[in-house]
Amino acid sequence: MATQYYTASSLDGFIATEDHSLEWLLQLGDIEETGYADFIRQVGAIAMGSSTYEWLLRHAVKPGTDEEGEWPYTQPAWVFSSRKLPRVPGADIRFVSGDVRPVHAEMEAQKIAENIWLMGGGDLVGQFYDAGLLDELIITIGSVTLGAGKPLLPREIAFPPLQLTAVKQIGAGFAELRYDVPR
Amino acid sequence: MATQYYTASSLDGFIATEDHSLEWLLQLGDIEETGYADFIRQVGAIAMGSSTYEWLLRHAVKPGTDEEGEWPYTQPAWVFSSRKLPRVPGADIRFVSGDVRPVHAEMEAQKIAENIWLMGGGDLVGQFYDAGLLDELIITIGSVTLGAGKPLLPREIAFPPLQLTAVKQIGAGFAELRYDVPR
Repeated sequence: MATQYYTASSLDGFIATEDHSLEWLLQLGDIEETGYADFIRQVGAIAMGSSTYEWLLRHAVKPGTDEEGEWPYTQPAWVFSSRKLPRVPGADIRFVSGDVRPVHAEMEAQKIAENIWLMGGGDLVGQFYDAGLLDELIITIGSVTLGAGKPLLPREIAFPPLQLTAVKQIGAGFAELRYDVPR
Repeated sequence: MATQYYTASSLDGFIATEDHSLEWLLQLGDIEETGYADFIRQVGAIAMGSSTYEWLLRHAVKPGTDEEGEWPYTQPAWVFSSRKLPRVPGADIRFVSGDVRPVHAEMEAQKIAENIWLMGGGDLVGQFYDAGLLDELIITIGSVTLGAGKPLLPREIAFPPLQLTAVKQIGAGFAELRYDVPR
């Protein structure tokens, strides 16, 4: 079991543009061609910040539109937010705020498969790192530079460094890098 | 022949800390274990900015100290700077400033092997990109995050994207990613 930060990033370390766009990423190919299917099968619980949740609402669920879709995850999801956010009917979503440690303990207790997925954003994942609760990074580097945007992980993890455990090329658009986080 | 940006970067897109330190990089292993030897053999001319030059002076040449060393390159080197910088006796270094295009033409004419190495920093490489003179990125991603520092390449290169041509793992400390730059 592991708590994993699985995300896509630009080569220069941004997970989205300043205005939360992923257009640069979605042009690069189908996420299903990456290691995503293998990854998600072992995810038993999900944590995300409010911007990530709102992106999913706008781009996947689209409530109140003609294109209204389903919440894409069967795992229980914890959404960190200090704001009141709209709910998705039928989805197992718990709104939380504050210290990540009790939430992580709740996720461990209620997860439905072995791993915990930290979806982002970068600062929320940084809070799990600060608490000693981040085990692994799985970063799919998309073949772009953005020059500015939302940071991958606004922390120094350098002494000791991460441990690179695997690299994989997926066409011309993606490089998947896996790291163990030092304890 | 190609104009290549060959550099090391943190996973989050920084080539050095804010205070120009590479301590995070130098702990990760010997650069000779990476693709550097193959790369440098085909370099016929080098361009760098003033911060990169000053780093080399402090860490490799160390003029006026007991540890004084030689300039590490046999290729002619062009140093972009608006400031007056110290010379290294016996080294083929030309100080230049302004538009990168005439300098690139001079490098092409005087290079002693097929490729041109842009050492950095990121903004200087960005100026070559802006002028349509950047062909390839060879980025050795060191297994750290820095959270802040000197940006890898402060430009958006996304529509069209870069083309990933090769990935290679070098131990637990490095992943080398090669990209062609779209024209």
